[in-house]
Amino acid sequence: MNLTNQLTALLDIDYPIIQAPMAGEATPELAIAVANAGGLGGLGCSYMSVDEIERNVARIRAGTDGSFNLNFFAHPEPRADAKLDASTRARVAPFYEELGIAEVPERGVATCDTFSWEKTEALVELRPRVVSFHFGLPDLDMVRALQRAGIAVMSSATTVAEASRLDEAGVDVVIAQGWEAGGHHGSFEASADDVGVGLVALVPQVADAVRCPVVAAGGIADGRGIAAALVLGAQGVQLGTAFLSCPEANTDDNYRAALRQARDDDTRLSSAFSGRPARTRNNRYVEAMARARTRFPDYPTMYAFSQPLAQACAGGKASGFEFVLYGQAAALNRELPAAELVARLVDETRESLGLTDKSR
Amino acid sequence: MNLTNQLTALLDIDYPIIQAPMAGEATPELAIAVANAGGLGGLGCSYMSVDEIERNVARIRAGTDGSFNLNFFAHPEPRADAKLDASTRARVAPFYEELGIAEVPERGVATCDTFSWEKTEALVELRPRVVSFHFGLPDLDMVRALQRAGIAVMSSATTVAEASRLDEAGVDVVIAQGWEAGGHHGSFEASADDVGVGLVALVPQVADAVRCPVVAAGGIADGRGIAAALVLGAQGVQLGTAFLSCPEANTDDNYRAALRQARDDDTRLSSAFSGRPARTRNNRYVEAMARARTRFPDYPTMYAFSQPLAQACAGGKASGFEFVLYGQAAALNRELPAAELVARLVDETRESLGLTDKSR
Repeated sequence: MNLTNQLTALLDIDYPIIQAPMAGEATPELAIAVANAGGLGGLGCSYMSVDEIERNVARIRAGTDGSFNLNFFAHPEPRADAKLDASTRARVAPFYEELGIAEVPERGVATCDTFSWEKTEALVELRPRVVSFHFGLPDLDMVRALQRAGIAVMSSATTVAEASRLDEAGVDVVIAQGWEAGGHHGSFEASADDVGVGLVALVPQVADAVRCPVVAAGGIADGRGIAAALVLGAQGVQLGTAFLSCPEANTDDNYRAALRQARDDDTRLSSAFSGRPARTRNNRYVEAMARARTRFPDYPTMYAFSQPLAQACAGGKASGFEFVLYGQAAALNRELPAAELVARLVDETRESLGLTDKSR
Repeated sequence: MNLTNQLTALLDIDYPIIQAPMAGEATPELAIAVANAGGLGGLGCSYMSVDEIERNVARIRAGTDGSFNLNFFAHPEPRADAKLDASTRARVAPFYEELGIAEVPERGVATCDTFSWEKTEALVELRPRVVSFHFGLPDLDMVRALQRAGIAVMSSATTVAEASRLDEAGVDVVIAQGWEAGGHHGSFEASADDVGVGLVALVPQVADAVRCPVVAAGGIADGRGIAAALVLGAQGVQLGTAFLSCPEANTDDNYRAALRQARDDDTRLSSAFSGRPARTRNNRYVEAMARARTRFPDYPTMYAFSQPLAQACAGGKASGFEFVLYGQAAALNRELPAAELVARLVDETRESLGLTDKSR
């Protein structure tokens, strides 16, 4: 066992540590710090126009020669569903009234676009080392166009079946994302909130099923978790929550305070915010929606109904409806600059694996 | 890292591998084979009278001088709840009609007793190396009486909070049981079916929180999983599902056939059989109950309503109501005699950890 392998060669990184490209919280500064420390930096670009993507890539390249990853959601176009909009409206209306929000939205509205040829063409020009997708893959012709430009393509799998589909589609890397993971789970379909495969079971089964390198994601916060992922059969790890406490992340004060108080058992997988399951801190809204087992409008149109509630809680004006995403190992977070965190993770991993200096 | 440690010394075993004492499927023959192979054998005794326990211990001791574990459920006495009985009766009645079962049970009935002073006194005489509990702990005076007799006491925790409570209560070993685990989850209260901490996140946080040795359980099927558990901070592992495919286990033909077809994502945590969450193969009954988010009569009285449905499916006469317990790594099962399985697990673990022959 050592820390360089097929994955580090493919991604041109020193250590098999990937910073999750969390849309909203990942920043060019975070990606730069991680890349300069020898990991793979990442930036979630689903909420950006092509112009914004180009500007952000220029910022990253001004700060590092290292590898970085641009991430995009590959969900299908949401379907309009007036009946589902109406039932959702009825369900959330009492919360709106309680919080004194005048208007309950009439219908779901998409807050971000799915991947497109316009973005594909821009990426072919920009040539980041890696492009990753979440919620499956876009049109395979787009994937091929990226790969022909020398870009490595990754996507997430939450089951062995999804991993096999990605492998058969020819991705360069499969990210095996466990039940423990914070934020949106990458299941291809909007899966149920009460199912998911734990990372310890998922990684070896995915490693056995696919030909490409496997990255483990979910519930990994320190070198013990990284070492465990490697012995399970992964060639690398992706950490999101662990990087939320870095000063380079765009994590607001309330979010950082929540991370400081996080416990192993204070989150829930919930589709009640976006329409797709995301692991979020448990609160009144999440609990109420879980009890009701409501079906929600398609991702990402459900945000139209949930965001006004979350915004009404901003700055502590109210509570119970916040959207605070983190994974089940958040309590292990360290508040360190990203470069220092990566160095610490590498040292801890070596220690956990019993690697001597000689094997570096 | 090596395979002998504080745990193996305490339990007087050669390898830190514990065979889960699955009530119904674990047998004296299985416990004997595992103990003779250097692991900790185990037998679930909650459905046995003191006489039966004594006879089974005599059978085990006739076959091995090795260590074994007797397991008991430590659930509180179930409460009678006529309203819950009535709503449960109404919910299951259509299934009874469909399967042609004449009578829907009137009320929940306990199928096994909780732990008692009578059993404590018998165990103090029998002195197995280990007694383990599930669903928390019995009266602490009973725990102390066992420990004074030189018996090591273990119990399961599904969260850091439960692990800390066990540690403060003075148990000798905490079993950190992850979301992945097959069968009944050991949460102290009857927890929700849609929550649980994955093993990768749970083990390091439990190891940080408690003073006693930690055993990892759930989703571990081969040496990769064992090695991962050890680097996460556990001193040993408990495997249940992996032993179900051994010839020594009391696993019927349909059950073995189900294990051969198992996938990572074909189970669900469900309270619909016993009243407490157990990971079981997904089927129509489990799905229907999950959709309804019904509350069930206290463990184990819910069995009164579910068992006639499962029995109506015995031998393939009907389907959709079977109670087939296994964990998320069941697809990695090997059909090997238990001694061979233990030897294989040890070899694989050494390989995964990069341990040389010299370190044996």
